[in-house]
Amino acid sequence: MSAFSRFTALSQTLPATVPFVGPEAIERNRGLVVKARIGANESGFGPAPSVLEAMRGAAETTWMYSDPENFELREALALHHGISRENIAVGGGIDGLLGEIARLVIEPGTPVVTSLGGYPTFNYHVNGFGGRLVTVPYAGDKEHLDGLLEAVKRENAPLVYFANPDNPMGSWWDADSVVTFARALPETTLLILDEAYGETAPEGTIPSISALIGQPNILRMRTFSKAYGLAGARIGYAIGTLGNTQAFDKIRNHFGMARISVQAALAALKDQAYLAEVIASIGASRERISRIAQSNGLLPLASATNFVTIDCGRDGTHARAIVDGLMEHGVFIRMPGVAPLNRCIRISVGPENDMALLEEALPLVLKRLA
Amino acid sequence: MSAFSRFTALSQTLPATVPFVGPEAIERNRGLVVKARIGANESGFGPAPSVLEAMRGAAETTWMYSDPENFELREALALHHGISRENIAVGGGIDGLLGEIARLVIEPGTPVVTSLGGYPTFNYHVNGFGGRLVTVPYAGDKEHLDGLLEAVKRENAPLVYFANPDNPMGSWWDADSVVTFARALPETTLLILDEAYGETAPEGTIPSISALIGQPNILRMRTFSKAYGLAGARIGYAIGTLGNTQAFDKIRNHFGMARISVQAALAALKDQAYLAEVIASIGASRERISRIAQSNGLLPLASATNFVTIDCGRDGTHARAIVDGLMEHGVFIRMPGVAPLNRCIRISVGPENDMALLEEALPLVLKRLA
Repeated sequence: MSAFSRFTALSQTLPATVPFVGPEAIERNRGLVVKARIGANESGFGPAPSVLEAMRGAAETTWMYSDPENFELREALALHHGISRENIAVGGGIDGLLGEIARLVIEPGTPVVTSLGGYPTFNYHVNGFGGRLVTVPYAGDKEHLDGLLEAVKRENAPLVYFANPDNPMGSWWDADSVVTFARALPETTLLILDEAYGETAPEGTIPSISALIGQPNILRMRTFSKAYGLAGARIGYAIGTLGNTQAFDKIRNHFGMARISVQAALAALKDQAYLAEVIASIGASRERISRIAQSNGLLPLASATNFVTIDCGRDGTHARAIVDGLMEHGVFIRMPGVAPLNRCIRISVGPENDMALLEEALPLVLKRLA
Repeated sequence: MSAFSRFTALSQTLPATVPFVGPEAIERNRGLVVKARIGANESGFGPAPSVLEAMRGAAETTWMYSDPENFELREALALHHGISRENIAVGGGIDGLLGEIARLVIEPGTPVVTSLGGYPTFNYHVNGFGGRLVTVPYAGDKEHLDGLLEAVKRENAPLVYFANPDNPMGSWWDADSVVTFARALPETTLLILDEAYGETAPEGTIPSISALIGQPNILRMRTFSKAYGLAGARIGYAIGTLGNTQAFDKIRNHFGMARISVQAALAALKDQAYLAEVIASIGASRERISRIAQSNGLLPLASATNFVTIDCGRDGTHARAIVDGLMEHGVFIRMPGVAPLNRCIRISVGPENDMALLEEALPLVLKRLA
């Protein structure tokens, strides 16, 4: 090992870990090949052809650093949302932004509220800054808004994380409930409202931008990784007050954005027609996954996201066996990590080829497990 | 403003700042257009044609996250350097890695040694974690190795930064002196040996990998941003012991790398013939810049990098006037920020078109200032 002897006490207590094992690692470790990559909530429908064209065109500008102020992208996003450029902070995906928020708010021992079984990467960042996770169980496979609020008040927590729609369950709250929750929070608690899956949610799920824009204790998170099909580009952004977006400027890696990625995001934002098409494809694929689940005697949960979570009716061991079994057929999926959510498996949408592989493999796996 | 009220005490003391103002911001703020972009030590020679081809080919894989273990790139780098994959940590440029090292080592008040006028982005990260910068003046426009060592011992500093070749001065130490310095450091002091400009240095400047690979108090930093021409891709890496490379795994954003960028780096590493060509072009461009400086009565310093630092013979105000004056002609350059280095301007190499613009503008600017 031979590590340097004076890493901080906190650093020394942290495990060398990864919030999610990548499909490439599974391939290497198990000697398998992924044929249907429907486990990481990426979009197999891909970005728009216009985006691919923009990326190819931008390749030869890669010798230049990207604008550290992300001016053009923030301007385009502001126009898209009808707000000011100063309400937007751009970062390396929502994951990157979550790490920055954790750094801005958390000191060792700081209580941070989230749902039990919620997004592991958020927990990873909280632990990474020595925060103390306070978790609230899901209620009926939805994040428990009243429970989160109660925990925030009980702990006097400066930070709470809530994803709407939710990952890993695919469930969602209506916009009015979200706004009520957000406004009920103490002004001394910062809400991270993760709307990574916002584009695929039913009408009435996502609060209007204006409903929450003035509140200095809210940061809304958006991404190009899901419906826009650009997970590998690493572009996310936060929407908040000027004071909050400027807070990122105090600590972020200003020259950290990949230039082609920024061009991809700009092009993606322009091609709303393609986005609408993809959202329709995602909806159809959710239906397809649900039918496959049902025809195998499993219970698909309603989803507002680009994945379907499926109740397999037993425990985490059983669900894990299905995940591992599907991988033997080249079908890469994932599952929630914590009981009782881990009675489920989680399957991302994808093109018909992926669905056909799933449809073929799932009954074989279940039969072997029976 | 209306910022959230409970950001950490440290966060609240930090300015919303950027270590370097980007040329795009200068264009916007001053209403000017950059015609010769030779200020940020990018490579106007660009990446190899084979790299551009790889990037264009990889565009359609951007819907997938990049492998969080960076396995393939680390494997290729290991082969390139004749070491193990486990000796390599990949990150978002050296800038990103510097931020991670700062986080691993620095607590509020931790003394950190660097050169007075050295790399501002390192200082930014040190300040961002509440470290206390201990600076050592340059000696004869070179970083002062004995002074750095003395400061490390006096302060019992856990971290020291040293760039070889140096930015912003372009100067360098021979490999033997670097190894002697590195071995003389207390084992309780981590040396960041920033070799961003290593490819363009004369033979005998860069210690062999094996000379320092076993020392757990050394991390060597490399990048694809300079000679490889991929600044906008954001790929850097650290070479160190397994224990140290694993330390990054405790805190980094595992899914943070842009997929196309990783493919670009892989392709760049394969095309060593192009790298050799570019290094020759960089050398010729350094000569060209030096001749332009001399023919204008200025003193170019010897350089082992992809830029030439030029002593303008007066003070920082004068040098600043030259930088600003060149920008009025569309020639973007930079200058060191601290006396006595700020008697200089710093001009990056570039293709002949950029050099011609510089050659035309510089005498006009100097004439107006005379």
